[in-house]
Amino acid sequence: MTADLADRIAAANAVGLRRLSDAEPVLARVRRAVEAIPALRDRVVLHAGPPIAAGSLCGPMRGAIVGAVVYEGWAHDLRDAETLLDRGAIALRCTHDEGAVGPMAGIISASMPLLEVRDARHGITAYAPVNEGIGAVLRFGANDDAVISRLRWLRDALAPALDAALRQTGGVPLVPLMARALTMGDEMHQRNVAATGLLFRAVAPALVERCAPGPALSQIVRFLANNDQFFLNVAMAAAKCAVGALGEIPYSTLVTAMSRNGVAFGIRVSGLGDQWFTVPAPVPTGMYFPGFTPEDANPDMGDSAIVETIGIGGMAMAASPAVVGFVGLPSMRDAIAATQSMGEITLGQSPHFKIPTMDFVGAPLGIDLRRVVKLGITPIINTGIAHRQAGKGQIGAGIVRAPLPVFQQALAAFAARYAAGVGRRAPPETVIPPARAGN
Amino acid sequence: MTADLADRIAAANAVGLRRLSDAEPVLARVRRAVEAIPALRDRVVLHAGPPIAAGSLCGPMRGAIVGAVVYEGWAHDLRDAETLLDRGAIALRCTHDEGAVGPMAGIISASMPLLEVRDARHGITAYAPVNEGIGAVLRFGANDDAVISRLRWLRDALAPALDAALRQTGGVPLVPLMARALTMGDEMHQRNVAATGLLFRAVAPALVERCAPGPALSQIVRFLANNDQFFLNVAMAAAKCAVGALGEIPYSTLVTAMSRNGVAFGIRVSGLGDQWFTVPAPVPTGMYFPGFTPEDANPDMGDSAIVETIGIGGMAMAASPAVVGFVGLPSMRDAIAATQSMGEITLGQSPHFKIPTMDFVGAPLGIDLRRVVKLGITPIINTGIAHRQAGKGQIGAGIVRAPLPVFQQALAAFAARYAAGVGRRAPPETVIPPARAGN
Repeated sequence: MTADLADRIAAANAVGLRRLSDAEPVLARVRRAVEAIPALRDRVVLHAGPPIAAGSLCGPMRGAIVGAVVYEGWAHDLRDAETLLDRGAIALRCTHDEGAVGPMAGIISASMPLLEVRDARHGITAYAPVNEGIGAVLRFGANDDAVISRLRWLRDALAPALDAALRQTGGVPLVPLMARALTMGDEMHQRNVAATGLLFRAVAPALVERCAPGPALSQIVRFLANNDQFFLNVAMAAAKCAVGALGEIPYSTLVTAMSRNGVAFGIRVSGLGDQWFTVPAPVPTGMYFPGFTPEDANPDMGDSAIVETIGIGGMAMAASPAVVGFVGLPSMRDAIAATQSMGEITLGQSPHFKIPTMDFVGAPLGIDLRRVVKLGITPIINTGIAHRQAGKGQIGAGIVRAPLPVFQQALAAFAARYAAGVGRRAPPETVIPPARAGN
Repeated sequence: MTADLADRIAAANAVGLRRLSDAEPVLARVRRAVEAIPALRDRVVLHAGPPIAAGSLCGPMRGAIVGAVVYEGWAHDLRDAETLLDRGAIALRCTHDEGAVGPMAGIISASMPLLEVRDARHGITAYAPVNEGIGAVLRFGANDDAVISRLRWLRDALAPALDAALRQTGGVPLVPLMARALTMGDEMHQRNVAATGLLFRAVAPALVERCAPGPALSQIVRFLANNDQFFLNVAMAAAKCAVGALGEIPYSTLVTAMSRNGVAFGIRVSGLGDQWFTVPAPVPTGMYFPGFTPEDANPDMGDSAIVETIGIGGMAMAASPAVVGFVGLPSMRDAIAATQSMGEITLGQSPHFKIPTMDFVGAPLGIDLRRVVKLGITPIINTGIAHRQAGKGQIGAGIVRAPLPVFQQALAAFAARYAAGVGRRAPPETVIPPARAGN
């Protein structure tokens, strides 16, 4: 690599790291998906991960899509929904292309409520669906009547109430809340107990003020109070918003997305825009719930690895002692070693997100494509494990190492694009626009 | 020491440790103090720490007492209240003697609402006042109109609502909640952010169901949602309840209370019943808020060190990285060393309270008078620092080491009592009654 190219990369990455560091995501609203994402007007369903054809879907994602088709009323039952899907009457698009992210199957359809996270400083908006809780849920491919009914309740009861409360509070700034949750044992991928509680505390007074009292309100309060993973989707939207602020920067080697559709594992890189690089998705290693083995596991799935791009989740393993054993690590020592090793492939440390058990050192921030390939150390992603059949739900939790070949592939593309540019003048820093959400 | 005496002590301590370990405190009610503690019917005020005469009170405790006298309507203003106090018209009793504990000044008077914690298994009930929040509050000796008004609001608005919610939930079991809060960075003395949030989540749905909607309810929800130290008083009542279950056991060298009245530091020991051993209270070492120095500090004050007798607070320093710097320790390494050293003076490890950063080893449980004296290692207590003048409030936070001489004094008394008993038959284990709360 020439010194010229190295300098351009360093300059671009410095800009990117600064944007990642000073992103100011605020949970502002809960909105109907089609209002937020006009592409959903026609029979379009968004899914997690890189784009995929209907014929290639894994079991749980297929299950979630046909569930969404029934939920929308486009089909009377699951069988009719499968027929629609198979004959191409349902268009599939990937969440990331629409400024959204969703955990596991990550399904978003027109009438679903979306969490809206805004960064006014950078002019970015990002979306995520509302977390349904645990057990039999759409995101793991469950699609029975109870699942569909819960989705309707989220849309008709919870969403308007939470939206009213958020508007009354003026929005909940997420960086300080997430920083605090890190001091409370959450890494905000596998564990969101503290962050959920802090969000609940932030919105509960306004909920009580703004909503008509009665059983509906108490059901909403109970749902928010008892769903320990509620914040996961908020953290994901915050992360999507932050990488939206980072955006497309020519010459930048910063990773802007890691995502899986249950078949392929894909990444995006700032300097390469919205191009996906993909390899087959690995099966997570970890702990299985009683009665399940890796034979039952679907390959890794979901947009949730977006949180690792902003230094939390597996990158911040040492912040979350309770997660250490849950994902199958032997001890805190290993968790600290894991977070330290992530420091080797990142370009900086978060000025906001601190690791309490490491004397509040900043979380590893800004995954550098070059370092990953050079050192052969790939990002650690904390993840849930879905059964490979639709509707069976979560069967465990563990760790996925992002596959090295996908980074090698992206670096080759980076070299192909930018080697030609050496000697020409790089776009000056000041005219690099922040990306729209969706990039 | 003879082998016979050593055996009796070991047997008694094994019983005590088991009772401490299997205590089941449940936050059951919020009740008017005089209903819970009949001694409050006359002009009696309870205070933290060992008994003290009105003429010997420190500034902040005196300020809090006269505030309570005005709050009760026994005097028109603070000056009249001081006159009443000085002429002996207000009787002072110590909280511990009435089955109660209170932080800092620990003042309890007839009409104050008390948190009621019950252990049905051991038949123990313990009480603590409701935490007022931070800033200018009675427990730090503040007593102006705003302080008195807030006390009345706690009594008239918050207490009935919280009581109704608790009764609807059937009570909140505190051991699992506290165990979870330890995994979320609380040590439940200096830091109660997580535990407060978990309690709020536990009662919020019932609060919304049971209470008339409107501004009163939203004010209550706002207070509970925004008072990070709300749980301190709950933890203290839980600890008092647990040492009540331990109770008076002949031959036991387990410490059942550590408490301070701002002048004296006192301890009680299971085998020596309700006798106080006292020495002058030390000034905490720690971090001062801007503008304050150790010159401004009152000697240590409050019943809150009861939490250290059940393995949390300073004993569990390693569980709470965010507290480490706040109390002036240099690093996590020191926090882990602190908790490890507490293991040397305790007889067991909590089967429930685990230290996440130490791979979930049990918290050091059951302070042994003999080990403290033999090793010269005294319990570490996390504490707030009050200004020595009434009404100035909190000026810092830090650590107090329980003074060694008070343990030496108690051990001498223990030897005097039980050396005579050597050779006689000890009371069999099965007839050792659990102590009433208050002992």
